[in-house]
Amino acid sequence: MNKLITMMTDWTYAEGAIGACKGVIKSIDSSLEIIDITHEIPAYDIYAASFRLKQVLPFWPKETVFMVVVDPGVGTSRRPVVAKTLSGHFIVTPDNGTLTHINALIGLEEVRIIDNKHRLWSSHHTNVFHGRDIFAYVSAKLSSDQLSFEDIGEVLVDPIITFELKEPSRDHDTLQGMIEIVDPNFGNAWTNIPIQWLVSFQSNEHTIFDILITSQGTTIHLKAVFAPTFGHVSKGECVLYHNELDHVAIAINQESFIKTYNVSYGPEWIIEIRRTHD
Amino acid sequence: MNKLITMMTDWTYAEGAIGACKGVIKSIDSSLEIIDITHEIPAYDIYAASFRLKQVLPFWPKETVFMVVVDPGVGTSRRPVVAKTLSGHFIVTPDNGTLTHINALIGLEEVRIIDNKHRLWSSHHTNVFHGRDIFAYVSAKLSSDQLSFEDIGEVLVDPIITFELKEPSRDHDTLQGMIEIVDPNFGNAWTNIPIQWLVSFQSNEHTIFDILITSQGTTIHLKAVFAPTFGHVSKGECVLYHNELDHVAIAINQESFIKTYNVSYGPEWIIEIRRTHD
Amino acid sequence: MNKLITMMTDWTYAEGAIGACKGVIKSIDSSLEIIDITHEIPAYDIYAASFRLKQVLPFWPKETVFMVVVDPGVGTSRRPVVAKTLSGHFIVTPDNGTLTHINALIGLEEVRIIDNKHRLWSSHHTNVFHGRDIFAYVSAKLSSDQLSFEDIGEVLVDPIITFELKEPSRDHDTLQGMIEIVDPNFGNAWTNIPIQWLVSFQSNEHTIFDILITSQGTTIHLKAVFAPTFGHVSKGECVLYHNELDHVAIAINQESFIKTYNVSYGPEWIIEIRRTHD
Repeated sequence: MNKLITMMTDWTYAEGAIGACKGVIKSIDSSLEIIDITHEIPAYDIYAASFRLKQVLPFWPKETVFMVVVDPGVGTSRRPVVAKTLSGHFIVTPDNGTLTHINALIGLEEVRIIDNKHRLWSSHHTNVFHGRDIFAYVSAKLSSDQLSFEDIGEVLVDPIITFELKEPSRDHDTLQGMIEIVDPNFGNAWTNIPIQWLVSFQSNEHTIFDILITSQGTTIHLKAVFAPTFGHVSKGECVLYHNELDHVAIAINQESFIKTYNVSYGPEWIIEIRRTHD
Repeated sequence: MNKLITMMTDWTYAEGAIGACKGVIKSIDSSLEIIDITHEIPAYDIYAASFRLKQVLPFWPKETVFMVVVDPGVGTSRRPVVAKTLSGHFIVTPDNGTLTHINALIGLEEVRIIDNKHRLWSSHHTNVFHGRDIFAYVSAKLSSDQLSFEDIGEVLVDPIITFELKEPSRDHDTLQGMIEIVDPNFGNAWTNIPIQWLVSFQSNEHTIFDILITSQGTTIHLKAVFAPTFGHVSKGECVLYHNELDHVAIAINQESFIKTYNVSYGPEWIIEIRRTHD
Repeated sequence: MNKLITMMTDWTYAEGAIGACKGVIKSIDSSLEIIDITHEIPAYDIYAASFRLKQVLPFWPKETVFMVVVDPGVGTSRRPVVAKTLSGHFIVTPDNGTLTHINALIGLEEVRIIDNKHRLWSSHHTNVFHGRDIFAYVSAKLSSDQLSFEDIGEVLVDPIITFELKEPSRDHDTLQGMIEIVDPNFGNAWTNIPIQWLVSFQSNEHTIFDILITSQGTTIHLKAVFAPTFGHVSKGECVLYHNELDHVAIAINQESFIKTYNVSYGPEWIIEIRRTHD
């Protein structure tokens, strides 16, 4: 194992939970390296955690252990698992949907249910901090080779829990997909439409596109050009662009698209892109 | 020494203070490992820093150095100290109350006043950034074995500065304690009442408890059951639970208890738990 | 090289960008150590990034690589560069103004334009995440000695892009300068006036100063004493103090000066300090 543990949670940086988990890890093997991915996943937003894992995992060395804990059902019947991806990474997480995007993008070689005996201080009876007592503990045992993947517990034979992801589609005059995530800082919206579809759909670099974003019966309508990056349009203008995951995304140069249009993300947020006819 | 330095401050992540301190540490010994506990202790909230230290320190390996700087009195007569706990950890901090909870939970073997000669750039005259110039500097010197605990400075013979903590109490029909901290993210409130008191106080798993929270003459009254975890009650319902420090805590499933009831923490926040009679 | 990479961006901690960059770095050489300076530079605020770099860089060991990415012009004609400072540090950044303060404080030995061949996945065509694809990649290649400074690319012969900084000045009854930054957490304002000017300007420790802060035609007028630190005045009182960079700064003890007076920073924020005559 490469002795790297990354952490992703919805706990924020404002209290002691992260610090307790890091202590548990360092007490098991002080040579383990712990790197924060983010602890600001929106509270209870399992879908966002699943997406963020897809956004970062492919860039990491094999054998890196990803501890991903967004766990509104902590202590209930959802199963704590370790997933081994086809890319050779490990994900330590509750099986509550966090594996959705990685499963679709890369695929899972095997998922094992963490046996109840693998936990910190088995004499303790609290059930509300599996992050510390199970997920950090097992991440450290696995990453330090004190516990092999095979000894984690039984193989999960049921399907993992997943969100339904709406697949993108296209016909001669429309590209359709979903807004799969937004950037909470710069306010851009990312779709799941492959960028090559837009490239081949475009007439020329001055093509103006009609964009319709629909959610729960309400439709937003706007126009944008496709440009190499934000700075190719004026400040305050809309732009379609090629995002870092090779999908179509939409932004307003130096302003927030999602605040301006009050847009969020998930399977119920449908986007359509059409060539204008004027 | 184990060469681990953890940092806890109220500086936030938004400016350069943390980065300057980490540079000072790495310049003294680049093999030292620096781990952030949190830099989002509420501004000037020495009490919260003291509590967070108790929440995390016991999980760390012996000899870990905890740099804890919430220091509204920087540059005044409060003394910079290094405390060695009975558990073999070191805390580098101003003596302003941050040692309260650890002293009560674990106890301190010895406290030494940092001699004025131990500081970065002794020729400098600024008195507003002891975090960088004293606490980071001494943490690194100590952790790297360039300075022994005995050579830090004189032993502190006066008592350390502490907050008065209200001890929990119970009689045949009431458990009483204080709200010792809240979770700023999920909005749960933690009491200092031992969980075993509630376990033995409970008639059966359907027992409904009356809860009274009093602060400065105002009393909040509510009812809750005691459940293994949040998910055992419906979304939006109150629940008493066994928290990660083996105390009684109170939450609303997937909502914020502290925002709903406008609750804060500290010795003036009294909580009483009674069995209902209907 | 010392194998230390520090990161400073305006990406926040709330999404996956940092995590992707860290994976790129660890995949190039897993022994590289990555330390966050801050990811909460205000969005698009190149000036603030430049200042924060000056605030922290001098405290780090030689050969540390500083990845500094605040890049509203990503993908446009601004040049990605690596600067070697006269102090022996390396800065990997877009040439858009981030080198202003370090250039003025320390000076640059040489600046090289990152050749287009040095980037992650050259087959990819996205232009919006040079942080991951160029700056993290080159930081790791350089820090791990897989790429020498000389092989980064051509020497930049044009001047670097800089902000105009207003130099401080003084005469017999006035010190003048600019507010060069503010502390977003505690709310202090830092000037670029050397502290020694105020020390020699002061009549005695009870001297009260008139302070005028002017921006865009509006002037704020207030009075303050000069004290060793915040705690020497009452809570809520204004104080001039010797800040951590040996400049004059202004604060309100345990309150926010910048919120109270609605003050910001940059060359257009002029401050004058005069001795009162009453």
